[in-house]
Amino acid sequence: MDALVLQTDFGTDDGAVSAMKGVAFSVNRSLPIFDNTHGIEPYNIWEAGFRLIQAMPYWPEGTVFVSVVDPGVGSDRKSVVAKSKGRYIVTPDNGTLTFIAQHHGIDELREIDESVNRLGGSEESYTFHGRDVYAYTGARLAGGYISFEEVGPSLNPEGIVMLDCFEPVLRDDHTEGIIGVHDVRYGSLWTNIPRTMFLNLGKKVGDMVGVTIKFNGTTVYDHTMMYAHSFAEVEVGSPLLYVNSVDTMAIALNQASFAGVYKTGKGNDWHVYLR
Amino acid sequence: MDALVLQTDFGTDDGAVSAMKGVAFSVNRSLPIFDNTHGIEPYNIWEAGFRLIQAMPYWPEGTVFVSVVDPGVGSDRKSVVAKSKGRYIVTPDNGTLTFIAQHHGIDELREIDESVNRLGGSEESYTFHGRDVYAYTGARLAGGYISFEEVGPSLNPEGIVMLDCFEPVLRDDHTEGIIGVHDVRYGSLWTNIPRTMFLNLGKKVGDMVGVTIKFNGTTVYDHTMMYAHSFAEVEVGSPLLYVNSVDTMAIALNQASFAGVYKTGKGNDWHVYLR
Amino acid sequence: MDALVLQTDFGTDDGAVSAMKGVAFSVNRSLPIFDNTHGIEPYNIWEAGFRLIQAMPYWPEGTVFVSVVDPGVGSDRKSVVAKSKGRYIVTPDNGTLTFIAQHHGIDELREIDESVNRLGGSEESYTFHGRDVYAYTGARLAGGYISFEEVGPSLNPEGIVMLDCFEPVLRDDHTEGIIGVHDVRYGSLWTNIPRTMFLNLGKKVGDMVGVTIKFNGTTVYDHTMMYAHSFAEVEVGSPLLYVNSVDTMAIALNQASFAGVYKTGKGNDWHVYLR
Repeated sequence: MDALVLQTDFGTDDGAVSAMKGVAFSVNRSLPIFDNTHGIEPYNIWEAGFRLIQAMPYWPEGTVFVSVVDPGVGSDRKSVVAKSKGRYIVTPDNGTLTFIAQHHGIDELREIDESVNRLGGSEESYTFHGRDVYAYTGARLAGGYISFEEVGPSLNPEGIVMLDCFEPVLRDDHTEGIIGVHDVRYGSLWTNIPRTMFLNLGKKVGDMVGVTIKFNGTTVYDHTMMYAHSFAEVEVGSPLLYVNSVDTMAIALNQASFAGVYKTGKGNDWHVYLR
Repeated sequence: MDALVLQTDFGTDDGAVSAMKGVAFSVNRSLPIFDNTHGIEPYNIWEAGFRLIQAMPYWPEGTVFVSVVDPGVGSDRKSVVAKSKGRYIVTPDNGTLTFIAQHHGIDELREIDESVNRLGGSEESYTFHGRDVYAYTGARLAGGYISFEEVGPSLNPEGIVMLDCFEPVLRDDHTEGIIGVHDVRYGSLWTNIPRTMFLNLGKKVGDMVGVTIKFNGTTVYDHTMMYAHSFAEVEVGSPLLYVNSVDTMAIALNQASFAGVYKTGKGNDWHVYLR
Repeated sequence: MDALVLQTDFGTDDGAVSAMKGVAFSVNRSLPIFDNTHGIEPYNIWEAGFRLIQAMPYWPEGTVFVSVVDPGVGSDRKSVVAKSKGRYIVTPDNGTLTFIAQHHGIDELREIDESVNRLGGSEESYTFHGRDVYAYTGARLAGGYISFEEVGPSLNPEGIVMLDCFEPVLRDDHTEGIIGVHDVRYGSLWTNIPRTMFLNLGKKVGDMVGVTIKFNGTTVYDHTMMYAHSFAEVEVGSPLLYVNSVDTMAIALNQASFAGVYKTGKGNDWHVYLR
């Protein structure tokens, strides 16, 4: 039996996630049900997309992810299941699939046919597709009760809603990217510059690297720091550039919060230059 | 095997919930163990009762819920197991069962006989019945090691401790209820006015409805808003009245926090009128 | 199959814990995977050690705990698996094992041989041993894919890194200990004075006890309070001394936060005297 892995922006302070799990458990009592995270910022589709690529490669093929960050519930946004590298993602088509499409590609896409893939008796419920449609459909797919084809009609993967996201570039003597997300617990900045792109600059672990951060074109930070394997290679409180756990370049203070000290944000307005 | 679903006001920042799960896992290693929520406000029995009815209908018959919001641990408050619509609820009899009794009814009630239903070796522990008695008894009930009858002596369900809670009423041209809880993550107000009661006013989706909120008789909010299926039917920031996921009427701002903007609370002092 | 119980200081707002579970699930799909807590204060090794002893006795022999509070990841700190009372603890050797060694003793210790016990393909990852080494090794140990001997070479348990921690003492008319941790959710103070040591003072439940708290030698609190079985034996808001769920002496206000009201901290600077 394949795993069902849930993520939402619901938090875990009420019974909403539990209701989703109850629906999935009712489909099959042996289904392995896990959480990716329920701590996504409310309505933050960008973060939902990122949390998927952070964990997906570590779950085996066949795993079904259900992602519910769904500010447009009840609008005409589509409900879809994407297939990417053998995993399935059940989600509203609202941009959540952006980073999966960029990093792993979407091999196939289907729209959920709610006339058959919907919890019985939920027809009068309009605000909790996460429970009534997505958890139900995800559980039936993971448990083998429906095939991918039975999700609903095929769509062109190139037609998915994509978030606007600055693509990292390599120039003569530097790379440019953005602060994609924060490592929330520690305050590190995770750029979207891949390790493989950065390595074209010819830097080796132990070298010093120039790091500039700009907010809407205004320089907010401009220093050199060590390119290190890990935090412990620099003094407590010192900055470092390192390869994070999703294989992109990240900026941190050892045992302190870079984002807190330098008040950095995230998204397309926050550009990072590595020289 | 039936599921064991735990809820507490312990939070998840220490090892207390884990200790409960260890006790349950020790009873039977195949027992499916889930969380309802552990984010209930400390000592908030009202909220504990509400989180149960939010999730219960989505778990199958036979599911055993363990609820530990227990400010009276060590007093003479009873420890009970209630049976409601085929599910079991293991809890102190301190008001936690109020909303289950109102919404679903309690079919049978038994007092836990702690002389037999208590973790061996825990006799010197007086402050953690959630681990020593409730998780242990819930796991043995879900795993089929004891029958409901073996929990302990039968009690009259009408004798349970009930919280004082204003009952919603339908009058000539309006309904009156209270703000039962907040949808904590989004700041929506969940009233205790059932959809079926509201529909007697003759309103249809798309109609405007007059909404008044009073705190101890003083008007705090008085406007009309659209009765909508879902958030996306009104502009971002606009108010709407909708049917929430437990089939009562709710009030929200699309992608903003009604409770935050209008500083509303919850409970018997906060009345809502729909016209 | 034995349980795998994870704890970290990662929080649950991103996909890091999920990636660890994905690695474990990929080892064996039937492995029972649980959380101890992921809410440990970042870098707080003391707390990590304490959360282990809080839950360990309630999980059966054979259970494998994985603890990842690892500020020294990438340094030459060792990665080890300790065996204690039939349970296994997979952790960096950075002090996390201190309280287990003191309370339960460490029977055997082995260093993880990362040349064989490491997720395939993770060689370029230097900052997430929790996923690449600890979750992977813990899952293989719990699932029976490697024996304890196959973890790596044996070490002397007496050589583990120990945190400096004041040991409780019994004197003529009083006991002295420290505030080990707070019961975070309720604000109670958990001292490291064992119930068995306190009982030498001849106090019985219902007696009044003198309680003094000093910060670096300066008295912060000095009152008498009732030694009670449980909170409900004193008035709401009144102090009590009680035996907590790990069998040491604790200080609380009934339904209020002692730590909040008296601004107490924790650790070796905070001494407690019971007379």
